[in-house]
Amino acid sequence: MATIDDAPEDSPRSHPGLYTDLYELTMAQGYWSEGRDDSPATFDYFFRSNPFDGGYVIFAGLERLLDYLEGLSFGAEELEYLSDIGLSADFLESFADFEFTAEVCAPQPGEVIFPLEPVVRVHGSILEAQLIETALLNLLNFESLVATKASRMRQVAGDSKLIDFGLRRAQGYGGLQASRGAVIGGFDATSNCLAAFLDDLEASGTQAHSWIQSYDSELEAFRAYARTFPDSTILLVDTYDTLDSGVPNAIKVAKEMEAEGHRLKGIRLDSGDLAYLSKKARTMLDDAGLEYVKIAASNQLDEHVIRSLRAQEAPIDVFGVGTQLVTANDDPALDGVYKLSSFDGEHRIKLSENPEKINFPGLKQVWRLTDDNGQFYGDIVGLDGEFDGQSPTGRMYDPAHPTARNVSVDGYDAEPLLKPVMRDGARLLDRRTTQEITAYARERLAGLPAEHRRFENPHIYKVGLSERLLRARDEAMSAHQSDA
Amino acid sequence: MATIDDAPEDSPRSHPGLYTDLYELTMAQGYWSEGRDDSPATFDYFFRSNPFDGGYVIFAGLERLLDYLEGLSFGAEELEYLSDIGLSADFLESFADFEFTAEVCAPQPGEVIFPLEPVVRVHGSILEAQLIETALLNLLNFESLVATKASRMRQVAGDSKLIDFGLRRAQGYGGLQASRGAVIGGFDATSNCLAAFLDDLEASGTQAHSWIQSYDSELEAFRAYARTFPDSTILLVDTYDTLDSGVPNAIKVAKEMEAEGHRLKGIRLDSGDLAYLSKKARTMLDDAGLEYVKIAASNQLDEHVIRSLRAQEAPIDVFGVGTQLVTANDDPALDGVYKLSSFDGEHRIKLSENPEKINFPGLKQVWRLTDDNGQFYGDIVGLDGEFDGQSPTGRMYDPAHPTARNVSVDGYDAEPLLKPVMRDGARLLDRRTTQEITAYARERLAGLPAEHRRFENPHIYKVGLSERLLRARDEAMSAHQSDA
Repeated sequence: MATIDDAPEDSPRSHPGLYTDLYELTMAQGYWSEGRDDSPATFDYFFRSNPFDGGYVIFAGLERLLDYLEGLSFGAEELEYLSDIGLSADFLESFADFEFTAEVCAPQPGEVIFPLEPVVRVHGSILEAQLIETALLNLLNFESLVATKASRMRQVAGDSKLIDFGLRRAQGYGGLQASRGAVIGGFDATSNCLAAFLDDLEASGTQAHSWIQSYDSELEAFRAYARTFPDSTILLVDTYDTLDSGVPNAIKVAKEMEAEGHRLKGIRLDSGDLAYLSKKARTMLDDAGLEYVKIAASNQLDEHVIRSLRAQEAPIDVFGVGTQLVTANDDPALDGVYKLSSFDGEHRIKLSENPEKINFPGLKQVWRLTDDNGQFYGDIVGLDGEFDGQSPTGRMYDPAHPTARNVSVDGYDAEPLLKPVMRDGARLLDRRTTQEITAYARERLAGLPAEHRRFENPHIYKVGLSERLLRARDEAMSAHQSDA
Repeated sequence: MATIDDAPEDSPRSHPGLYTDLYELTMAQGYWSEGRDDSPATFDYFFRSNPFDGGYVIFAGLERLLDYLEGLSFGAEELEYLSDIGLSADFLESFADFEFTAEVCAPQPGEVIFPLEPVVRVHGSILEAQLIETALLNLLNFESLVATKASRMRQVAGDSKLIDFGLRRAQGYGGLQASRGAVIGGFDATSNCLAAFLDDLEASGTQAHSWIQSYDSELEAFRAYARTFPDSTILLVDTYDTLDSGVPNAIKVAKEMEAEGHRLKGIRLDSGDLAYLSKKARTMLDDAGLEYVKIAASNQLDEHVIRSLRAQEAPIDVFGVGTQLVTANDDPALDGVYKLSSFDGEHRIKLSENPEKINFPGLKQVWRLTDDNGQFYGDIVGLDGEFDGQSPTGRMYDPAHPTARNVSVDGYDAEPLLKPVMRDGARLLDRRTTQEITAYARERLAGLPAEHRRFENPHIYKVGLSERLLRARDEAMSAHQSDA
């Protein structure tokens, strides 16, 4: 009979060296075997299109990535496994004391980022810079995706509270990152205790239908809960009949609580027409002198439903959002990629029949251009150091249509987005609390003009190449085209 | 400066007691405080609709659920946290020696399951049976979802090999469960080393564009890789130009390998029209006498693209599938729920304006009806023990339209699906290997008539209530309606 001792300890953090695609390791052996494992290389993490037909992405996941990089090592168990599946013993020997020492540059977590611009730049030996590709993509893509989804809900939720209820429908252990992403994007709390514990988020919850069902009557069930939590009870009112039974019983219990010197915190609607029911319930509560009792609503909410409820002036104080948040269901993956842009000091490029898929070569920086009102105008991607100590001048060029589409960058303030966050194995960015990241995301989103934030056909934010980078790309392209 | 020592150990398995929604714990305190924590209760796990507009779901995730249940405990750190966020000290004291001892009944992992029928039945004290809701849903919903998605690809992939390439686009740590689900559904291998290590899956991989780009020429890059892996090299041929450069260079290297007594294993296409390119590449390889070199293809594949490629007779031997598999992107959550069906020996029900949302009360069993050809006819849900030692007779009733829709169940073989898999904290089901689960899923899927497996408007598999269960549901409904 199997016991818990046979059960695998299935945390990526327990086996960081294996949290990767096999090909990262076989390529590592290849570089080592060809004697080029120490050759310097630069990789860029970027994504190609905004999710949700939106106009931006919130950068998240960096803290977990840095944790992973700090802990990246290969123990005896991992090395034995890799040997079993065919990697060479000589090569693996060199891995026993592996440490990640490449330089990682990135924006602050919470930054607003855009398609095609380098978001994370990794510069080090090709072996180590390549090796981390899969984990980097896994950790950044998803937390950024959920933070972005959450920020869309935050945009339309007004001053209502947003609570993540998604763990049960999350994609397995991904629920952990989902809850953190949700808070970074502007959610106030989560039902997910583990995420709340690990990332210092506010934990929140109400009660399940089963609580009500386990009592012979709804009223009795409500009273029992109120006895247990006299100052934090939110009653679920839709088990039998929301307006005929749930709300009247909640009102009865609220009055009984008042008599004992307590207050009912709220009621929760979890089915039916939430606009209609919340208005009726609000009136019933108010008529009973229970203006202070909040109304929470849940059931298949997303940013469009929340916006519609707000537009209908549904008096909902708290939205509980599950599946659509934690799976980002209308676009469940951010299409982030990680591409080689220089090797051994030389620019590198990958060609494509689609000009938008040709990467930008070289060691690069991104400067954010801000107008006199502190609003973001666009981002210019140039070669590293190109505009150090000076404002960008000249023009920036659309990557796909540089001749037809280019704009002046004169007169804007420019701020480099990529800062070193890790070097020689040491973390250079103090660990941010989730609250700090959330605040930064809110501040940066406020710098993004509203036309880029709207849901319908958002205005495309300008990301352009500097003239020098454009020339560098043309040269790299011609070099390969003349080869062919 | 933060260091790795500050980093949280973010594994659900390290803190199983916190891998839950807060309300499971507050309700636990409520049951304890009301003196009913030991009262017996039954909960059913079921889902309401098939994902992907399909006709079935493959049951997966049970092994991880049982691991979780075996390890479910509350250490000092967890209890302190729960006290900090407001749970009562007295109550938490009773939790220090918590052990899960409820009875869990379930089908074998890999079983083919259908909407509305109880899939997992948990019977124990209401405290423990309620407490595990969130983790149970999280673990079963997602692994079953991916297994189902994978099985759809397996259906149309013929004898081609299917490899999971999805970790980089997976929803964070959910990538672990995704790879296992993929193999259960019929994938042959995964690029995900950690999943391969933990769940004994075949690890597989090719090479990245960066490998090619890091060399001055594609030919040189191919030669270097072939030197490192003379017997397992798959060359990625689309970095510069698939037919003008990639395939000719691969052929050149394959011939050089032959001269050294080795064989090129394959080439991989990762962009462009895969039908067109695979046919051209096959011809070029065959013309060079390289009939043995396999063609692998990747790039936004799903079951529909794979079916189309096969219909076009694209000579693709290996499909590498990423995002669409691991995020199940067209339906990224299975809508599984967990509902109370009995308390203290009495049937319990949750009403709904939608008759299909009314749950089935009582302690139940599901019998699978099989015809003389070993094909599944339908599943009848009855009260536990109702048909023990006998074949079901009479009729089974559609849950939403029992009067209009009911069919005879006479003459079929009947097999109970729910078997005890855990009791008194002990696992009763020997740990299945992933390979065993995969084989069982394949066997069971073969018992499902093709009309339920097709992609377009699959015939709805019959799930009906026994007459006794129908009556029990009617009684529970009237009891609540007369209360109102």
